[in-house]
Amino acid sequence: MTLRARLADILDRDITRNTITAVIIFNAILLGLETSDRAMAVAGTLIFALDQACLAIFVAELSAKIFVQRKAFFRDGWNIFDFVIVGAALVPGSQTVSVLRALRILRVLRVVSVMPRLRRVVEGFLTALPGMASVFLLMALIFYIGAVMATKLFGDAFPEWFGSLGHSAYSLFQIMTLESWSMGIVRPVMEVYPYAWVFFVPFILVTTFAVVNLVVGLIVNSMQDAHAEEANAATDSYRDQVLARLEAIEKRLEAKDSPPRDRM
Amino acid sequence: MTLRARLADILDRDITRNTITAVIIFNAILLGLETSDRAMAVAGTLIFALDQACLAIFVAELSAKIFVQRKAFFRDGWNIFDFVIVGAALVPGSQTVSVLRALRILRVLRVVSVMPRLRRVVEGFLTALPGMASVFLLMALIFYIGAVMATKLFGDAFPEWFGSLGHSAYSLFQIMTLESWSMGIVRPVMEVYPYAWVFFVPFILVTTFAVVNLVVGLIVNSMQDAHAEEANAATDSYRDQVLARLEAIEKRLEAKDSPPRDRM
Amino acid sequence: MTLRARLADILDRDITRNTITAVIIFNAILLGLETSDRAMAVAGTLIFALDQACLAIFVAELSAKIFVQRKAFFRDGWNIFDFVIVGAALVPGSQTVSVLRALRILRVLRVVSVMPRLRRVVEGFLTALPGMASVFLLMALIFYIGAVMATKLFGDAFPEWFGSLGHSAYSLFQIMTLESWSMGIVRPVMEVYPYAWVFFVPFILVTTFAVVNLVVGLIVNSMQDAHAEEANAATDSYRDQVLARLEAIEKRLEAKDSPPRDRM
Amino acid sequence: MTLRARLADILDRDITRNTITAVIIFNAILLGLETSDRAMAVAGTLIFALDQACLAIFVAELSAKIFVQRKAFFRDGWNIFDFVIVGAALVPGSQTVSVLRALRILRVLRVVSVMPRLRRVVEGFLTALPGMASVFLLMALIFYIGAVMATKLFGDAFPEWFGSLGHSAYSLFQIMTLESWSMGIVRPVMEVYPYAWVFFVPFILVTTFAVVNLVVGLIVNSMQDAHAEEANAATDSYRDQVLARLEAIEKRLEAKDSPPRDRM
Repeated sequence: MTLRARLADILDRDITRNTITAVIIFNAILLGLETSDRAMAVAGTLIFALDQACLAIFVAELSAKIFVQRKAFFRDGWNIFDFVIVGAALVPGSQTVSVLRALRILRVLRVVSVMPRLRRVVEGFLTALPGMASVFLLMALIFYIGAVMATKLFGDAFPEWFGSLGHSAYSLFQIMTLESWSMGIVRPVMEVYPYAWVFFVPFILVTTFAVVNLVVGLIVNSMQDAHAEEANAATDSYRDQVLARLEAIEKRLEAKDSPPRDRM
Repeated sequence: MTLRARLADILDRDITRNTITAVIIFNAILLGLETSDRAMAVAGTLIFALDQACLAIFVAELSAKIFVQRKAFFRDGWNIFDFVIVGAALVPGSQTVSVLRALRILRVLRVVSVMPRLRRVVEGFLTALPGMASVFLLMALIFYIGAVMATKLFGDAFPEWFGSLGHSAYSLFQIMTLESWSMGIVRPVMEVYPYAWVFFVPFILVTTFAVVNLVVGLIVNSMQDAHAEEANAATDSYRDQVLARLEAIEKRLEAKDSPPRDRM
Repeated sequence: MTLRARLADILDRDITRNTITAVIIFNAILLGLETSDRAMAVAGTLIFALDQACLAIFVAELSAKIFVQRKAFFRDGWNIFDFVIVGAALVPGSQTVSVLRALRILRVLRVVSVMPRLRRVVEGFLTALPGMASVFLLMALIFYIGAVMATKLFGDAFPEWFGSLGHSAYSLFQIMTLESWSMGIVRPVMEVYPYAWVFFVPFILVTTFAVVNLVVGLIVNSMQDAHAEEANAATDSYRDQVLARLEAIEKRLEAKDSPPRDRM
Repeated sequence: MTLRARLADILDRDITRNTITAVIIFNAILLGLETSDRAMAVAGTLIFALDQACLAIFVAELSAKIFVQRKAFFRDGWNIFDFVIVGAALVPGSQTVSVLRALRILRVLRVVSVMPRLRRVVEGFLTALPGMASVFLLMALIFYIGAVMATKLFGDAFPEWFGSLGHSAYSLFQIMTLESWSMGIVRPVMEVYPYAWVFFVPFILVTTFAVVNLVVGLIVNSMQDAHAEEANAATDSYRDQVLARLEAIEKRLEAKDSPPRDRM
């Protein structure tokens, strides 16, 4: 038995998987403790050392996996996901730049790739996305048009909200979520431009309608999938049975129709 | 007839059930009156005495039930629910500590366990929960990751909102419900960290999408249950009938096919 | 032809219906004009006189209807609706008390009872209500329990929001709609009672879940109705046809099975 | 080959379509750049010239299309849509009045008429509208009645929110979206009119219920369309097959029933 086969065997054992899951959860708790000033004052160096140990285990596990599966490793999306999340911690600066340090918690997402149940939920989410691509494209279009118009119309008077395309897009996203759209944004704007509602109210109606259609699409798709899987198996087998029997009866009758002439 | 059998008989009568329901509703009104300073000034001691009387009736009823059903009593979830709610009132301190006193109103929830219609609604709610466990787990994960990141990134500048994991989780819950997320939280944060929207906007999109998927799952499940119960009974009986008849016809034809040879 | 028959004939004509609809819409415009100070300054007495004329037409129409249909008039819910709306204008004080004057605009709702399409929509809404009665009852229970608890726990410190059962119920309704629940209510409350979220967050989750279940129930019901009406007509006729034909075939075979013995 | 036929041939080529799409997107980028003060300072005249060039291309394309298709051009809704959007830019003043200049970005919507996938999404949205006409009419009625009542009841005390029918309608729209309805509007109103909630809470319940019913209607319609298209094709062909075979069997049996008598 080669080293590679032995490693593959070890990686495939339940105990290895459970250990990795436990390390991920332990790492999550460590990273949670890091947010507590008290915990850091008492055991800061220990927490940091244990975090490094967890990282070492992940690196070792993924290295072993790559060594075993070679190129096949990178054909699975979840493997690439693990590789990027763990690999990011090895990039120079990732331990010192505070934003990159904060990203380490994303490692906890490895729980998703390790637990099949969660994997299926995420895969379910992802399969729903392509069907919504057209509506997303349309919404991007509406947002771009809305942002250009809002910037041109209200940008000079309200630079904080509509000063640039970026500001306008963010403000329109806020308005789409209906957060403080009237009291916070549109009423103040209407004090300068009394007809501003002609722009904002249709924007709300159109984007809300598009979002509702996205949700309706999701429901119809899920329903059809559920329907197709379950009911049709039974229906198809029943229909095949009926048609087979009807054919058999007809053949039997046909066979009886011709021989009698012979017998006559 | 033993005492136990006689008690079982009394508990099973409609009049007993209706009396208990009436006592629960009467108790609910009493506890409502307790919130009125005027009512308490006029008839405070009477209200308190009547509340104690209601509690005594509940204790007597549940004691009788336990005496009659013995161990079987604790096998029904609704009985345990009643037992905990009523039992909590007998814990020392429950009449003096104000928070525990406020919990007495939960006794009104006994109406649910007494009225079959409400029981069914609650049971319907509860049966929907296990199917959503994976999505709940995923959302807990997203919240934990989000809370750790928000605390590390924004905790120092905004201790009131993101000072600790708990504060962050609460703020993220508020943001998920879209309440004042932009004007109240993200815009002030963006004044210090202009790229804060890179964290918050995807957080809103992901959690909203997860919630929508929960609702879609609920709809699909309810629809399948409704579908399965109603339509399939008729369909199955029809299919059985068709197949039985086809089989009968075939058998009859087969029987006629072979005898003729005998007769010949 | 008696007066009653002639009146019945006139009421049944299309022109009468269209005239009444036109009068309702004209009355709606009049009542809208009453809100404009300028219109009232220019033509206040004319508007008032025309409104009285519209009312007179409605009274005449309904009197005629009652004269024609007698007791049968009050068996139709829409007739009672018309009767109450028009009758309210004749109650003494209804022209002087400002709140009652404002209620006159409800007369425009007569458009619903006159236009069959709108009638069907409203009837569709109403038929959906009984199926939701249990969930409504449960939500009333949750609101009552929540209001009592909130009044007892937070009433002393926040009398404006939770000072009485009524205040609490209104505040909880606001919280259920998620309007300013955190920034406006729960964060200020948490400054006095840091654990207030233990009450409010579960309240939001439970009521939101109940509302979602209401909507899911509505969807499932509508779907079943639509399904039952449309698809089943075709399916049932097809099934009846298949079973009838199978029976005919069997009978024919049976008939041929027995005679041969006679012929033999 | 006439000029008309040659033009029709050119317009129909893939390269023409792709060029037009590219010009639309290039025009969208130009109009986006116009919102940036820096870009305008560096290359303002160039951007303006290129925008004019894009417009010239659109005018040429549509002129060619009209020349080719003649009257048939105006029978397609999408053509009229393109014609209005491009034509608006040629109206005198459209290059100087700032509001009309801002409307130029609507030209980007031509992407929808050019890309079949987006066209289908928009057409899907539009086909859903007629089915919702009755509910829209009902909501317009509710808004009109609500606006008249709110203006009469609260207009004097709160002219900013309910001073005229228009102000009231806007405020009621804001309340329907649940934005700041309580903290922003109803609580201040209740300080003057303590019973204002009797108007606003039912208004919220009724309009929310109507919106929910709109969404439910959308879901049921989409589901039926999806259902009808997909499942019924298979079902109908199966049913036709079964009935045809049963008929064949019966005829065969009938044919065998009568001849024997002849043969006898």
